[in-house]
Amino acid sequence: MSHAPASVETLRWLPDSTDSTDSTDSLEGTRLRMLDQTLLPRELVYLDMGTVAEVWEGIKSLRVRGAPAIGIAAGYGVCLACREVADKSFDEVLEACRQASEYLATSRPTAVNLFWALDRMNATLANLPGKWAAERAAAGAPAAWIQRELLVTAVAIHEEDRRMCHAIGRIGAELLSDGDHVLTHCNAGGLATAEYGTALSVFFTAQDQGKRLHVYVDETRPLLQGARLTAWELMQRQVDCTLICDNMAAHVMATRSVQAVVVGADRIAANGDTANKIGTYNLAVLANFHRVPFYVAAPSSTFDLSIASGREIPIEERQPEEITHSFGWQSAPAGVPVYNPAFDVTPANLIAGIITEMGLIRPVNRAQIEAVLQVI
Amino acid sequence: MSHAPASVETLRWLPDSTDSTDSTDSLEGTRLRMLDQTLLPRELVYLDMGTVAEVWEGIKSLRVRGAPAIGIAAGYGVCLACREVADKSFDEVLEACRQASEYLATSRPTAVNLFWALDRMNATLANLPGKWAAERAAAGAPAAWIQRELLVTAVAIHEEDRRMCHAIGRIGAELLSDGDHVLTHCNAGGLATAEYGTALSVFFTAQDQGKRLHVYVDETRPLLQGARLTAWELMQRQVDCTLICDNMAAHVMATRSVQAVVVGADRIAANGDTANKIGTYNLAVLANFHRVPFYVAAPSSTFDLSIASGREIPIEERQPEEITHSFGWQSAPAGVPVYNPAFDVTPANLIAGIITEMGLIRPVNRAQIEAVLQVI
Repeated sequence: MSHAPASVETLRWLPDSTDSTDSTDSLEGTRLRMLDQTLLPRELVYLDMGTVAEVWEGIKSLRVRGAPAIGIAAGYGVCLACREVADKSFDEVLEACRQASEYLATSRPTAVNLFWALDRMNATLANLPGKWAAERAAAGAPAAWIQRELLVTAVAIHEEDRRMCHAIGRIGAELLSDGDHVLTHCNAGGLATAEYGTALSVFFTAQDQGKRLHVYVDETRPLLQGARLTAWELMQRQVDCTLICDNMAAHVMATRSVQAVVVGADRIAANGDTANKIGTYNLAVLANFHRVPFYVAAPSSTFDLSIASGREIPIEERQPEEITHSFGWQSAPAGVPVYNPAFDVTPANLIAGIITEMGLIRPVNRAQIEAVLQVI
Repeated sequence: MSHAPASVETLRWLPDSTDSTDSTDSLEGTRLRMLDQTLLPRELVYLDMGTVAEVWEGIKSLRVRGAPAIGIAAGYGVCLACREVADKSFDEVLEACRQASEYLATSRPTAVNLFWALDRMNATLANLPGKWAAERAAAGAPAAWIQRELLVTAVAIHEEDRRMCHAIGRIGAELLSDGDHVLTHCNAGGLATAEYGTALSVFFTAQDQGKRLHVYVDETRPLLQGARLTAWELMQRQVDCTLICDNMAAHVMATRSVQAVVVGADRIAANGDTANKIGTYNLAVLANFHRVPFYVAAPSSTFDLSIASGREIPIEERQPEEITHSFGWQSAPAGVPVYNPAFDVTPANLIAGIITEMGLIRPVNRAQIEAVLQVI
């Protein structure tokens, strides 16, 4: 593991396919470079991971976080199994990869994207024996061949997410103008995805198009994802930003100029009701009062059309210590009762539009959602 | 200085006047007992202060905080000067008291209530030479006589504040019913006043009347007065409470039952626009959306009738570190721009009523304010 502060990518497979020094069958230098998010915003440290165990630990310890990014890391993690058994037979390498996939699934057992990505890797693994039978004559060493095959899927998972982020950015950026002041909550940025993120992709893409923005960042209690991660990402990409406490948003809207609020989403019901980080609904009510358009940016995979409305979305409650001992310091009386919901639900009628990679859903209602998502 | 965990009074002069062992002229045991608020909510420690210097340090170091409480402490602080020169002549004791008053004025040079209280003590001091000339034959030792005279004023300052708090409590409690769920922000409690506070006095008085309440407490970023002080005061007085982050208030109003919001005030304009801790306006907008009545509890001295509306109230900006290093830990990127307003302004039209010791102002407008405050 080493420091490599040049890039700010969340995840990168090395050596990349354009690297001409990588034409051999050697797996020695193959590795996953992972930005250690637990050290942000104080330190920018990249970890070069050469083993499945390192990737497992990276997911488990939240060095990589955010549903898409976890899935991408797990995909590459399965590939790394080949390096560890580089001189073994086809069957032995295949078995090592299967075991790696099972092992990685235990790193964060509640992460849906983790299983989705590992299922795709497993499907690729299942096809390999037949393909090997046909290609083995020209394939070279089995470990290198299997890794190349697995990498096609892992890179596809990564690339699809990157394209999704950029599509959301392009569609959302049309809603913003040069000089706009915008506001966001929590972290819906590149750190949680392949690149650019969802809500932050809208800002990054607008800036790429030459529109100068200024972003107010809610610190996002209790876990401070806005202060720790969103402010950091915006500064890395030279987007003007100002950090505020969550309870200052109304004062900012009333006394300063704010043209739009853009946030991410965890789950969207069939009618457009949106579950997202606690405080999002708060912000939607404030935006409504101050007539500031409130947008949600999320991939189509965030929609759960099996639930009719937000009333059916259960709200996870988290540990009181996140509020009473945020930073290792007791800031509330011992034994105080605490309510710590992780999410809230913003009703569709407070959302001006939902920005997806398939198009902008506006107005937000069931019919428009089905039209844009091409639900038959 | 000693620990005395029996009472939860912010300030107490000892021995009190009902103590029959205190009929002598001895000043040896006179002292000011001060709750050390810097140790809350982790430790309940009372400091027994026998010198002016200890009181000065207590105010300077925020062991006592809140405008009324600082004024009360300063009044008693002047009295303590007598103990330090107990065997001196009348003129020497009087001069020591004058110097104590000047010295205490330097403890928190921006605290208006501090100067108001010391002005009252100085007026008492100015009258003493004439009174001493008339009474000296029967007065006993000059230091003890001067201290008794000064204590009349110091106790009056204390008692007036106590009566004001209880009057606000009685008037406000009429707005609440048994079983109500209410919500408050920051600390407008007994710690900042002689007793019971302003907004919290409404809750304490309702509970004294047999109405059981449940209070949601905004933690109140960035300085966490709600978590550190309000939750502590409510627990001390056995009022049911639940601590939340500021950004959870909308979710609580939407998904649980909340009958009223009650907050304090720092400054109220002639039209009822109210400046209070940042986040108050935020909460007023949320209450308005959820049709929850939003009340302000404040003494008549909080009104500044020289300013027509909230637009004339300047908003103090505080240090970025309060947000980026709240708990001795860097939670945001180095150099991130920060906006940290200390207060916001809630427009009168979002306030259902202002609870003062002179009566309830409802509806909140200039005419009603002048009627209740008896402005001629």
